[in-house]
Amino acid sequence: MNETIRAACGQFQPQFGNVQANLVRMSAMVEEAQADLIVFPELCTSGYEFRDRHEAEALALDPGGAEFHWFREIAANDPPHLVFGFPERSHQSVFNSCALIEPNGRTTIYRKIHLFDREKNLFAPGDKPPKVIDTGVGRIGMMICFDWVFPEIARSLALQGAQIICHPSNLVLTYCQRAMFFRSVENGVFTMTCNRIGSEARSNRTLTFTGASQILSNRGATLAQAAPDREEVIAATLHPLEAENKMLTANNHIFNDRREDLYAGLCVERAVAGRS
Amino acid sequence: MNETIRAACGQFQPQFGNVQANLVRMSAMVEEAQADLIVFPELCTSGYEFRDRHEAEALALDPGGAEFHWFREIAANDPPHLVFGFPERSHQSVFNSCALIEPNGRTTIYRKIHLFDREKNLFAPGDKPPKVIDTGVGRIGMMICFDWVFPEIARSLALQGAQIICHPSNLVLTYCQRAMFFRSVENGVFTMTCNRIGSEARSNRTLTFTGASQILSNRGATLAQAAPDREEVIAATLHPLEAENKMLTANNHIFNDRREDLYAGLCVERAVAGRS
Repeated sequence: MNETIRAACGQFQPQFGNVQANLVRMSAMVEEAQADLIVFPELCTSGYEFRDRHEAEALALDPGGAEFHWFREIAANDPPHLVFGFPERSHQSVFNSCALIEPNGRTTIYRKIHLFDREKNLFAPGDKPPKVIDTGVGRIGMMICFDWVFPEIARSLALQGAQIICHPSNLVLTYCQRAMFFRSVENGVFTMTCNRIGSEARSNRTLTFTGASQILSNRGATLAQAAPDREEVIAATLHPLEAENKMLTANNHIFNDRREDLYAGLCVERAVAGRS
Repeated sequence: MNETIRAACGQFQPQFGNVQANLVRMSAMVEEAQADLIVFPELCTSGYEFRDRHEAEALALDPGGAEFHWFREIAANDPPHLVFGFPERSHQSVFNSCALIEPNGRTTIYRKIHLFDREKNLFAPGDKPPKVIDTGVGRIGMMICFDWVFPEIARSLALQGAQIICHPSNLVLTYCQRAMFFRSVENGVFTMTCNRIGSEARSNRTLTFTGASQILSNRGATLAQAAPDREEVIAATLHPLEAENKMLTANNHIFNDRREDLYAGLCVERAVAGRS
C-alpha cells in the first residue's frame, strides 16, 4: 500500500428506528463519495436516543445477519472500505459498536469502551482492546465518539501502527472536533471524525448533534470539514504512509521520545504484576 | 487544605545570561502578585538560547547554591510557593529543570523528560518520574513546556493525585495554550502554563516567544490569561479541592472509566515483565 487514497465521511441524520431508510441513505452516500474509505456516524443504522435497553435490543444488528450481508455486497461491488456505527447484538448483550467492512468481506468490530453518560444504562462496555487492521487502504484503527476524551485509545491505536483512525461519532458539543487536532498531532495519525446532524427528542430532553465532521492530516491539518447542520459527503485525498513519519521536529520522534519507564501510575496493575 | 488560594503566573522576558537581573525581576513579580503560588517560565534564570553545552553549564545553578538560598528566603518571608525553570547543574550533567520551593524551604526538582529539538544537544533528559508534592496550597505536579505534547505526563501527574499542574514554558508557537484546555479537561486538573515573551537571536535564528500565559480550571475554563507580548503578572482565585471531582457527566468518572486492561501497547515493557 503505497498510494494515495480518497477518504470520505458521510454526515447525515439517521431516522430513528428506520434501519432500512438509513441503509438506503448510506448506500446513496457511498455512491456519491466514490471513495476508497468512507466513515459514517455512530449508531447510524438505528439513531441514538433509545428510551431503554429493550429498544436498543430491538434495533440491534447481528454481524452475521442480513444487513451485514448487504453492507458486504456494497463493499464488494463499489468497492469502498466501509466504517459505520451500529448497536450490536451479541448473545445477551448489546454493544455500541462500529464495523469495518473490507471489499473482501472481512468484517472487524470495535465495541465502544468509554460509554457516555446514560449510554451506560443501555449498552455493555467494550470488552476487547482496540486493534489495528491492515487493509488495502492503510492500517486502520477505530474508536467511537466519547473515546476521544481518553488519550489512551488513540495512543494505543497509534502505537499499534494505525495510520488512520476512523471515529464514528454522535457529538452534541463541539469540543471533540477541536480535540482531534491534538489527537492527530500527538500521535502523528490521520483522523476521520464522522458526526451526525439533526435532533432527537425521544425522552425528556432534546439532543441536537453538531455535525462538522472532519478529516485531519497526521499533522492536524484540516483536509475536509462538513457544515454543522447539513447532510453532506466530505472527502480528501491522503497518503496513509505519511503517518509513518513520527518526526515532529528534526530531533523529536514522538514515539521514540516516549519514556514508558518514567510514566508513573499509567499502568498500575501491570507494573505491580511485573514486580511479582 | 480546604481553602481557596491565589495562584499567579509571572510572565516576563529573561535577560540572557544575567541571572542577577532575572532574580530581581522575579522578586518584584512575587511582590506584585501577592499570591500563594506563583509560576515563572522555563529557564527563566538564564534565558533560553544557549549556543552550546558549555554555555548551559556556565549558567546552570546548583540547588544547593546561593541563588536557591535566596529563593528560599523569598518563599519563607512572603510566603508564596515558587515554581520556576532553571538550568540545573548536577555532577557532570545539566538538566532543563524546574523547582518548587515551599515556604518551609522544602525544594522539589523536576527534570524535563521530553527535550525539544536542539535542547537534546544541550541538556541531559529527565531521569526521574514526575511526582506530586503535597503542599499547603494543594497537591502540585510539574511539567515543562514540550512535555505537553506527550499526554502521558499530565496523565501520570493527575493519576498520582495532582490538583494543580505547574507548567513553566518557553513556547515559540501557540498550539500548547490551546492544547492545555484538553490536558485540563481530560485529567480534571488546574493547569498553570507560564510562558515567556520577547525574542532571542543568539545563533543563526531568531526565536520569538508567544506569551499568553494562562491559568485554567479543572474543567478547562480560562481563569486568567496574559497578553502575548507584555510582561505581566496574571492571577486567579482557585479551589484546588475542586480537582478531586472527576465526574465529567453524571455517569462518567474520568479515572474510574479508564480501562487499563484494554489499552494495548501503552506499557509494553511492563506488560512483558508481568508475564514473566
